[in-house]
Amino acid sequence: MKNDNLRNSLKIQRFIRPVDKTKGLPPGSLREPPVEKAIPVTLELFNYNEKGFTSEHIATVDKFFDKSSDLTVKWLNINGLHDIKLMKEIRDRLNIHPLVLEDITHTGQRPKFDDYEEYLYFVIKMITYNRQTHEIFTEQVSIILIDSMVISFQEREGDVFDIIRERIKTNKGRLRKMGADYMAYSLLDVVVDSYFEILENIGGHIQEIEEDLMSHPTVKTLQDIHHIKRDILYLFNSLWPMRQLVNTFYQNESKIIDKTTRFYLKDVYDHIVQVIDTIESLRDVVSGMMDIYLSTVNNRMNEVMKVLTIMASIFIPLTFIAGIYGMNFDNMPELHFKYGYYAVLGIMAIMGILMLSYFKIKKWL
Amino acid sequence: MKNDNLRNSLKIQRFIRPVDKTKGLPPGSLREPPVEKAIPVTLELFNYNEKGFTSEHIATVDKFFDKSSDLTVKWLNINGLHDIKLMKEIRDRLNIHPLVLEDITHTGQRPKFDDYEEYLYFVIKMITYNRQTHEIFTEQVSIILIDSMVISFQEREGDVFDIIRERIKTNKGRLRKMGADYMAYSLLDVVVDSYFEILENIGGHIQEIEEDLMSHPTVKTLQDIHHIKRDILYLFNSLWPMRQLVNTFYQNESKIIDKTTRFYLKDVYDHIVQVIDTIESLRDVVSGMMDIYLSTVNNRMNEVMKVLTIMASIFIPLTFIAGIYGMNFDNMPELHFKYGYYAVLGIMAIMGILMLSYFKIKKWL
Amino acid sequence: MKNDNLRNSLKIQRFIRPVDKTKGLPPGSLREPPVEKAIPVTLELFNYNEKGFTSEHIATVDKFFDKSSDLTVKWLNINGLHDIKLMKEIRDRLNIHPLVLEDITHTGQRPKFDDYEEYLYFVIKMITYNRQTHEIFTEQVSIILIDSMVISFQEREGDVFDIIRERIKTNKGRLRKMGADYMAYSLLDVVVDSYFEILENIGGHIQEIEEDLMSHPTVKTLQDIHHIKRDILYLFNSLWPMRQLVNTFYQNESKIIDKTTRFYLKDVYDHIVQVIDTIESLRDVVSGMMDIYLSTVNNRMNEVMKVLTIMASIFIPLTFIAGIYGMNFDNMPELHFKYGYYAVLGIMAIMGILMLSYFKIKKWL
Amino acid sequence: MKNDNLRNSLKIQRFIRPVDKTKGLPPGSLREPPVEKAIPVTLELFNYNEKGFTSEHIATVDKFFDKSSDLTVKWLNINGLHDIKLMKEIRDRLNIHPLVLEDITHTGQRPKFDDYEEYLYFVIKMITYNRQTHEIFTEQVSIILIDSMVISFQEREGDVFDIIRERIKTNKGRLRKMGADYMAYSLLDVVVDSYFEILENIGGHIQEIEEDLMSHPTVKTLQDIHHIKRDILYLFNSLWPMRQLVNTFYQNESKIIDKTTRFYLKDVYDHIVQVIDTIESLRDVVSGMMDIYLSTVNNRMNEVMKVLTIMASIFIPLTFIAGIYGMNFDNMPELHFKYGYYAVLGIMAIMGILMLSYFKIKKWL
Amino acid sequence: MKNDNLRNSLKIQRFIRPVDKTKGLPPGSLREPPVEKAIPVTLELFNYNEKGFTSEHIATVDKFFDKSSDLTVKWLNINGLHDIKLMKEIRDRLNIHPLVLEDITHTGQRPKFDDYEEYLYFVIKMITYNRQTHEIFTEQVSIILIDSMVISFQEREGDVFDIIRERIKTNKGRLRKMGADYMAYSLLDVVVDSYFEILENIGGHIQEIEEDLMSHPTVKTLQDIHHIKRDILYLFNSLWPMRQLVNTFYQNESKIIDKTTRFYLKDVYDHIVQVIDTIESLRDVVSGMMDIYLSTVNNRMNEVMKVLTIMASIFIPLTFIAGIYGMNFDNMPELHFKYGYYAVLGIMAIMGILMLSYFKIKKWL
Repeated sequence: MKNDNLRNSLKIQRFIRPVDKTKGLPPGSLREPPVEKAIPVTLELFNYNEKGFTSEHIATVDKFFDKSSDLTVKWLNINGLHDIKLMKEIRDRLNIHPLVLEDITHTGQRPKFDDYEEYLYFVIKMITYNRQTHEIFTEQVSIILIDSMVISFQEREGDVFDIIRERIKTNKGRLRKMGADYMAYSLLDVVVDSYFEILENIGGHIQEIEEDLMSHPTVKTLQDIHHIKRDILYLFNSLWPMRQLVNTFYQNESKIIDKTTRFYLKDVYDHIVQVIDTIESLRDVVSGMMDIYLSTVNNRMNEVMKVLTIMASIFIPLTFIAGIYGMNFDNMPELHFKYGYYAVLGIMAIMGILMLSYFKIKKWL
Repeated sequence: MKNDNLRNSLKIQRFIRPVDKTKGLPPGSLREPPVEKAIPVTLELFNYNEKGFTSEHIATVDKFFDKSSDLTVKWLNINGLHDIKLMKEIRDRLNIHPLVLEDITHTGQRPKFDDYEEYLYFVIKMITYNRQTHEIFTEQVSIILIDSMVISFQEREGDVFDIIRERIKTNKGRLRKMGADYMAYSLLDVVVDSYFEILENIGGHIQEIEEDLMSHPTVKTLQDIHHIKRDILYLFNSLWPMRQLVNTFYQNESKIIDKTTRFYLKDVYDHIVQVIDTIESLRDVVSGMMDIYLSTVNNRMNEVMKVLTIMASIFIPLTFIAGIYGMNFDNMPELHFKYGYYAVLGIMAIMGILMLSYFKIKKWL
Repeated sequence: MKNDNLRNSLKIQRFIRPVDKTKGLPPGSLREPPVEKAIPVTLELFNYNEKGFTSEHIATVDKFFDKSSDLTVKWLNINGLHDIKLMKEIRDRLNIHPLVLEDITHTGQRPKFDDYEEYLYFVIKMITYNRQTHEIFTEQVSIILIDSMVISFQEREGDVFDIIRERIKTNKGRLRKMGADYMAYSLLDVVVDSYFEILENIGGHIQEIEEDLMSHPTVKTLQDIHHIKRDILYLFNSLWPMRQLVNTFYQNESKIIDKTTRFYLKDVYDHIVQVIDTIESLRDVVSGMMDIYLSTVNNRMNEVMKVLTIMASIFIPLTFIAGIYGMNFDNMPELHFKYGYYAVLGIMAIMGILMLSYFKIKKWL
Repeated sequence: MKNDNLRNSLKIQRFIRPVDKTKGLPPGSLREPPVEKAIPVTLELFNYNEKGFTSEHIATVDKFFDKSSDLTVKWLNINGLHDIKLMKEIRDRLNIHPLVLEDITHTGQRPKFDDYEEYLYFVIKMITYNRQTHEIFTEQVSIILIDSMVISFQEREGDVFDIIRERIKTNKGRLRKMGADYMAYSLLDVVVDSYFEILENIGGHIQEIEEDLMSHPTVKTLQDIHHIKRDILYLFNSLWPMRQLVNTFYQNESKIIDKTTRFYLKDVYDHIVQVIDTIESLRDVVSGMMDIYLSTVNNRMNEVMKVLTIMASIFIPLTFIAGIYGMNFDNMPELHFKYGYYAVLGIMAIMGILMLSYFKIKKWL
Repeated sequence: MKNDNLRNSLKIQRFIRPVDKTKGLPPGSLREPPVEKAIPVTLELFNYNEKGFTSEHIATVDKFFDKSSDLTVKWLNINGLHDIKLMKEIRDRLNIHPLVLEDITHTGQRPKFDDYEEYLYFVIKMITYNRQTHEIFTEQVSIILIDSMVISFQEREGDVFDIIRERIKTNKGRLRKMGADYMAYSLLDVVVDSYFEILENIGGHIQEIEEDLMSHPTVKTLQDIHHIKRDILYLFNSLWPMRQLVNTFYQNESKIIDKTTRFYLKDVYDHIVQVIDTIESLRDVVSGMMDIYLSTVNNRMNEVMKVLTIMASIFIPLTFIAGIYGMNFDNMPELHFKYGYYAVLGIMAIMGILMLSYFKIKKWL
């Protein structure tokens, strides 16, 4: 019970950007992010070009700014947002606008794309889905693309970028052959691709609910429909801004993005449009399930009412007749007829049969 | 039961692009398509111009690239998407972008039109309808238009292009007189035309459901409405992007498309707009049927309640009176009146008649 | 019954463009229109200018192409679309695009305006309304405007253009003073004006249904609402594209349309916008009537339930008391009290009054 | 009853432009307006500039065209539209387009703004509200702005322009200091300002209905909600085009409008946007009241059902027990137990208490 | 009761701009604002630049126009709008358009941004939320940005700008380093930031209602849903225009706004978009809660009906049987069977068990 409340509690507040900690700070301030301060921030650095690559965990960002290597593209992945000193160092050495750093540390941003001329900045939503509890969580991923460098900021360590790490190591696909813009695209692409998997899981869950709905709908079915409806609403609200983000990214005329990469960004755009379309379909599907539930409940009530009406309509008149002959009047000649009792029984039987026929004709039986 | 679940299972998952097999592959990779690998891929080649034509099944694509023939326009129709070697050969010899080939083999694409300058690429949905089970299936058809060549990719052999084959052979219409762009248009046109037939079938099915709804609505009617509603939703989602596709195609300024052909593309655009309009009308019609169903159920419940109320309101008071004179008090003078019994019967009759009159006035009878 | 089904049958299929006869024909083919082949095609020719006019029924189109007359503007009105030879002759002599002729003969087109530079072509919907059966029918009217010639194609002879004929004959208004573009405008104008009359009739019918709804709603009222709802949906779908048509027509920069005429086209545009607005209002009105119907049914059920509850709540406990004193126990002292019977009757009366008071307080009475 | 029907009758037909009288007239014809021909048309002429003003009722328009006065701005207000001779004289002397005069006399126009270069023409809706019957009426006001002249046409004499007359007389505000364009703006402004008052009255009426709804909803409440819903729909449809009108007016680049006046037109635009916003809010509010009504009816039915169920569930089983001991079998030993009667009464009491406890636990009591 | 009405009264009228006091005044007139005339108007003046600041309460505006200070940026905050003399002085000395001053004193404006070239003017909504009564209040804040001066007008003294005062005093953030445009941005920013806090509070309240809804929904729950729904509607209507305001502000090309400040305005724009998104989500959430409430009520009614039907269906037939053997016919042989009574009791028990089994199979138990 308690737990259930908590679960719902999560559900409504997640629609709202958490706000109290930021109150009163001037714009561009770096604030401490709300969670998991205990876990240390980790930094992963990848240097690569077509010929080779290095991959290492680094303690300070100095190595990232070290330009001695031949490996032209640099990707710095930062897990954890609460190392304010680190943030400030990146801000100052790359001359990033304070608002960008504010947005990175202040999770709960709406996905967006900003072109600061010297560099591009975008915030995206990473979605994870718990198959057991059917709960959806979102995480903010911020990406800065500057010259031949890409910096990505995750709230905590995750495995969604493993695919990218693998591609760098095995030199599969064209990642190693292309520039930093393609790396930024790749990060965006794997996140968008992961949405399809989420949708497939949610689809499977809707399927289960629908099977319940068709075979034996209960109050739990209604609650499941309600929960999945809200999850889809949440998903829609989280991903809807992604469409505009990718569109702006794709049509942006920044020199940082190569023409070849634009074809790939157009492809991501097509994917995100398909994701939005699918979510809208699922919303309509679930909305239709709600209607079916209500009709089913109505139909059942109808059936219950029919049983009551049939029982009452048959037996109440018969009971009345029995009541008449249970009266104690002195002068009731029928009581003394020899076959009076049988006659009354016969009349009752006929009345019952007539009633049944009536309901048969009405198609209530 | 099992079967029914399966049928529904198809229904929800079909809204979602299948995803798991592609996970982790770099963009532009060729993947194996999910179905029917056992069936061999077949290639049909048509060469034609105004004066003549050849038509043959070919085993390798060499013949397609052979430029010795005078027959200027070439149409290669490929049935089956799982011959990766073939795909790669086409990609490399025509210098097609890897993303295009990825989209071709990865069925479940949203219909779209891409202009790659050297060539045009579009993906469309072919719809088939099973008149017995009233189920709708979609198939992806990809078309590449490059110079005087058209390549079409179907998931499996079908008969929708028979009309085109016939026109080449009989030289009816202007197909043989026009270029490859007109051929691409023709393929698009026959697919769009086939939608009207689907709509007519669905309209017929809605008609049947409506007749049920009007004469004797049952729970099955509700399920039919639910199914057709979802089918229309599915159809709408599948065909809605077609509108933008044809619009982009028609207004595209590529030199590959001749001005004469544009008039025809405008015509296809008008058709697809009409298809979308019709689907929206059907959606509204079916939505109104749902309302009618609910009102009907409500009206019936009302009728059931009236029967119950009339029966109970008439006989419960009468039974009470009979109960009074069934009491065993020593001192109940009425019991000893000579015509007491008849008086009570009379009173009961009058009460019954009054009740009936009341319900008559209330228009419940 | 049969008839009623047929009527509904008409209703759903009319939303869908008839398609089977065209299957497989190449684009631009002339096909036989589906109805009324028995009735001969008639051709009416009007030649006129400010000074005079001729009006005649002609058998062949030769007279139309005869340029000897001084009467500058020519209007050819063709009733019936199934004379394919005639169509081909017009196509070839005026060099009309085959797609135009296809659209003319293939009724069921969405209203549209096409600018073929040499000539303008538009398809409009003429609406007729049967006041008895409240049924709406649409007919396709196609108009070609080329130089100083206007050709109009109707499916069958009708009287909507009588107003135009009258104006030519009596030289009222500015029709005879203006060119062919004004004639095309006039044809469009009388058709759009006729919509207002249809709307007035439908409004009157809605009025009648509403009066039923307010005074004594029955199941027939529900069906009427359902029918009018679908008629309005049909009307909306038929006329919605007219808005874009007139807008394109009005803003079109073709030299065929004179600047003076544009003011008039703007006026038609205002009218069609008003028509669409009105249809949307009626839709909302009818949708509100559906809600009222449902609430009324709900209220009635409520009333029925109250009667049942009041009757049952009063008499069931009283019957129970009577039942107690009808028991045959040896030792029931109350039975032998002198005024026991009267005491029980009194208690019953008090209970009944208390119950009635309770329901009075609850405002159920 | 009759009256009520009439009232509703007004309601539906008012959504539709009256049409029958115009049928068959050529465009630009002047037709007789449908009402109040008996009342004579009156003409009020104001001449003014910063230094002085004249105000007079005139019989013919000659005085209006007399250019001898120094008072630069002229405002002619015409009450009544049925003096066709007068209309024609204005049309011919100012060279107004026939369509404009047609629109002026043909009330029921959609609000619109037309720029005829030489002059500007706009039609607006004046709304009046009857506080007793809560009925809304609309009147068409047409305004022509030409050089330094403004002509306004009202269907009948009204007091909404009294504010303007007062300002001319008292020289308050900047009206006398500005040109004819500011006068046209002022007329528009007072009409738009009057909408706010209407909205306040309607808001007050909704308030009353809501109080009824919260304290004791009846069928009348439902009808009130229905009426106010339709009034709001009517208001929305009447005023929605005003937004576009004022926007076109404000952004129009005609030389007739001075730059200074544009600031004021922008202000009117802000007002009309606020009016539309408010109407939409009220629509949502009323729509929510409908939901509340339905829920309340549902809740009541629930309560009624509970009373019935509790009464029946308690007494039906008890009556059954009483019935058992009312049977006349020879061999029923319990009947002869000394305290059998009391035992049965006790059992009945216990059963009743158990039932009540059950309903208590179920929270039905 | 009275109080409750009052509360609702506030609710509907607040959607409508108060109007009666302004009736008849010419545009640009200064009117007395409706409330709190008793409280004196206070003026706070801040002069600052990067090096220092002064902060003082002033009695007349002379000090504000005194240009002797080195402190370049001036911010004048005026609490209270009813000092018409003061307003006129500001208007005349800064040459502000009369419409601006009218809008400032006439609270109830729609949020808007106007560019008067010499200065920028915008009106925003400040929202306050009462956590106890869950009531939302709005206050109008008007801001004029002219050269290096910012003037803000509040209806009454409030604490929302304390954050700004603090930043000036402590020189935190970049406020002191930037110009007057940044000050105007800062005022806008703190107001928009305050919305997030309101949303969090409302979210918490929705949470509470949802917990009620899930555990024990009552009529109060319905009323709470209704109230919160209307509050969200009100909030949406108040803040929706803010989006356009900030967008126009941000994209405005006025020279008064520095390029650096535009980045910050873009950030505010992102925030207001997020606010609107969140309100829309909450609207959907609450709308879903309404559906859940209705389904729950329906389900309960169903349960009530089942109890009634089960009780009645079991005991009515049994009572009938008891009634039969309570009849007083002379010739009823069963009555004289030795075990007749027990046989009948047995039959009754079997019938009861059959009934229960039937309901068990129907899953009603």
